[in-house]
Amino acid sequence: MTAVGIDAMEIWTGKLKLDLAETFAPAQGDDPGKYTKGLGLHASSFPDVHEDIVTMAANAAHRLMDRKGLEPEDIGRIDVATESSFDNSKPVSTYVAGCLEKVYDGDFHHANKGERKFACISGTQSLDDAYNWIRADRHRGRAAIVIATDTALYARDDPGEATQGAGAVAMLVAEDPDLLELSPEQGFGSADETDFLKPNQQFPSVDGKRSVNVYLARMREALDDFASVSGDIHPEDYPLIPFHTPFPGMVRKAAALGYRHIIRDTEIEDELAEEIGYQPVPEAFDSDDEFYEAIREYTDSLTETERYQAWYGETIDPTLEISRHVGNWYTGSVHIARAAGLKHARENGRDLDGTELLVASYGSGAQAEVHAEKVVEGWEDEIAQLNIDEQIRTRYEMSFEEYEQIHDVHNHDTEADAEAFTDPSEEFVFDGWGRMGERTYKYVE
Amino acid sequence: MTAVGIDAMEIWTGKLKLDLAETFAPAQGDDPGKYTKGLGLHASSFPDVHEDIVTMAANAAHRLMDRKGLEPEDIGRIDVATESSFDNSKPVSTYVAGCLEKVYDGDFHHANKGERKFACISGTQSLDDAYNWIRADRHRGRAAIVIATDTALYARDDPGEATQGAGAVAMLVAEDPDLLELSPEQGFGSADETDFLKPNQQFPSVDGKRSVNVYLARMREALDDFASVSGDIHPEDYPLIPFHTPFPGMVRKAAALGYRHIIRDTEIEDELAEEIGYQPVPEAFDSDDEFYEAIREYTDSLTETERYQAWYGETIDPTLEISRHVGNWYTGSVHIARAAGLKHARENGRDLDGTELLVASYGSGAQAEVHAEKVVEGWEDEIAQLNIDEQIRTRYEMSFEEYEQIHDVHNHDTEADAEAFTDPSEEFVFDGWGRMGERTYKYVE
Repeated sequence: MTAVGIDAMEIWTGKLKLDLAETFAPAQGDDPGKYTKGLGLHASSFPDVHEDIVTMAANAAHRLMDRKGLEPEDIGRIDVATESSFDNSKPVSTYVAGCLEKVYDGDFHHANKGERKFACISGTQSLDDAYNWIRADRHRGRAAIVIATDTALYARDDPGEATQGAGAVAMLVAEDPDLLELSPEQGFGSADETDFLKPNQQFPSVDGKRSVNVYLARMREALDDFASVSGDIHPEDYPLIPFHTPFPGMVRKAAALGYRHIIRDTEIEDELAEEIGYQPVPEAFDSDDEFYEAIREYTDSLTETERYQAWYGETIDPTLEISRHVGNWYTGSVHIARAAGLKHARENGRDLDGTELLVASYGSGAQAEVHAEKVVEGWEDEIAQLNIDEQIRTRYEMSFEEYEQIHDVHNHDTEADAEAFTDPSEEFVFDGWGRMGERTYKYVE
Repeated sequence: MTAVGIDAMEIWTGKLKLDLAETFAPAQGDDPGKYTKGLGLHASSFPDVHEDIVTMAANAAHRLMDRKGLEPEDIGRIDVATESSFDNSKPVSTYVAGCLEKVYDGDFHHANKGERKFACISGTQSLDDAYNWIRADRHRGRAAIVIATDTALYARDDPGEATQGAGAVAMLVAEDPDLLELSPEQGFGSADETDFLKPNQQFPSVDGKRSVNVYLARMREALDDFASVSGDIHPEDYPLIPFHTPFPGMVRKAAALGYRHIIRDTEIEDELAEEIGYQPVPEAFDSDDEFYEAIREYTDSLTETERYQAWYGETIDPTLEISRHVGNWYTGSVHIARAAGLKHARENGRDLDGTELLVASYGSGAQAEVHAEKVVEGWEDEIAQLNIDEQIRTRYEMSFEEYEQIHDVHNHDTEADAEAFTDPSEEFVFDGWGRMGERTYKYVE
């Protein structure tokens, strides 16, 4: 079976920065620790006036094609995943192709363009579609570009406001990939849930507590489903486990519950039992409440063990490094988690050749998907090309007033006019509205 | 290679009828022929007060599962295609699964649910995703349910108002299908076009003339692309050619241009040349305008030939039979065209065993896709199960005032309260709003 997976990736962050501790917390009258420690977030990325989901997607894809020496005829499929779409009919991928055709001689007229929506999980679903398309041998030797792009805005003063973010991740999916081979095995945990909605509205309605519980419940189902097809899984078998990261604090919670769930009835549980006892079982308690309380206590003790902390520090914590500085990118979040983990591994000289990552995606509404990705020899060369650190460092840092202004610029219900904070160069920019109310774009040299 | 394709299908029409000649034309002060002859449309379907894209989709899927004796665990994937979504994050497929779980013992917790958007073509894209998923051998022996569901409303007094419609098509995609095997070969014609948009709005902005031209241009590209992988194609090789049908008049035009395009430089052109001459070539004309005029004249003459008319009457006209009575169903339209053609063939005793249909899908924005579908022996038994004629016949026929009322009910920007015109029975219905503004559903015995 030919290997199929991610051949290369590029990340594009919105060019503006809101510092949560220095700027957001004081304006809200909050202790900075609420954000930096509670959520695990230091800053959010926002799109400048001339940026949006199309420009971020097109700029990431352009850099990807340029770096890999690709021409439009090498691409058989452009799939965009987003929950920030601004049109109920025309997909973002057509705008992205239109942008790219401005800078290449060829065109994408024989490429299949698509758009998927399912909260934050559709980026992974699009990756799966591209994988299946190649595996089904319908690609004619061509590769797919899969882009996750979102402007994750919340209404002003919504509890989610501190978790905002904006950026795009473009991935090249191809045969014999240079970076990661996807496993055919997948695990799903999926249910009709009302945790996070955008009913005919741009900004989400969120039931925060329910959303956390649904994330954990669906993730557990997906892990079980994955184990049912891949054989027993062991948290310490994977050098990195990138999770969907709405904010790092959520992953801190998910990792503990996932670890606890996976080690149940294994030798790890036995080994830890000397220190913290065995996991509580419902039969031993008179009421559900007592059982849940015992489970909570066990989980707290578990996270304080040396073994868990070593695992968390090596396998999970590195995947949060980008997210901490850019916030939630919705569809892109699990993909920047993977990138952050690999970047950290490269910078620390970890040998990942041939190892498998466990990738845990999630979307509210709700669905979790778990699959494995085998790290291809030479992966460090590909990861070395990422310039996300420089992008993060050179963002324009907004004052709170500037943030308020930029929130209005990207609010579909307001007509805000503002000067850009950054000077675009060698990139696609939003260029105003066309005769039918469509957004138009141009390339700035 | 195991055959993969459409194992079964069900169609669900909105339960209300607007007669265009008797009711709409007089109210608009128009000649009925404008609709019945010009557009080729006699009536439109609308959803009753308790119907929407979720109920129509769930009802079609329920009937499909019931008829095929399927349980939730037999289904590994539920994909919904729509451009009438009412939430920017949560996909319609989760609501559909939630409905189905009310009437089955099992659940769809390990099924992948998704939603695709690309104007009217995403139903076919979802069919392709399901095909690829099985071909990639990730389905674990399970089948996919693919649903195209739309409420195709235009703003009142928009030129598109007469082409409205509403309904859902559910298709079961499986190995060794009982109805149609999909070809691995596909042809695409795709470009960044501004012909039909819904920028942050429910009702479309349409450039009607451009939309027709874009449909024809993209379809021509897709035909060429398909021929490049499947070998030369010949219009008379296919017993039926279902096209995306925004209104039958559009297909009348597309069929003529498609036929002309495909016969160029073939023996059919030679044979027809005695009667109508050869196709004009640009080199023979002083200006583009003169060339286009000559092409138009040739096409007109072509459609008057006995050979073309026999082909059109047998291959195209039967595919329009449902559409004429229900209007445009957006993502579902090409799928009801296929169903109409097969139904007509069965009713007329045509032997289609082992023949191939050419299926021509289209979505504004814009993309055309062409693929072939081989008719499986025994197809008549499957087609005999369709009860769409009865559904069409028993719709409640609205007065113009009732139509105005129902248009308001389904307009997201109005809060209209109205009594239902029909009594639901053994079906899912819309049941009001939940605490987070979500739509809720129940099953009525």
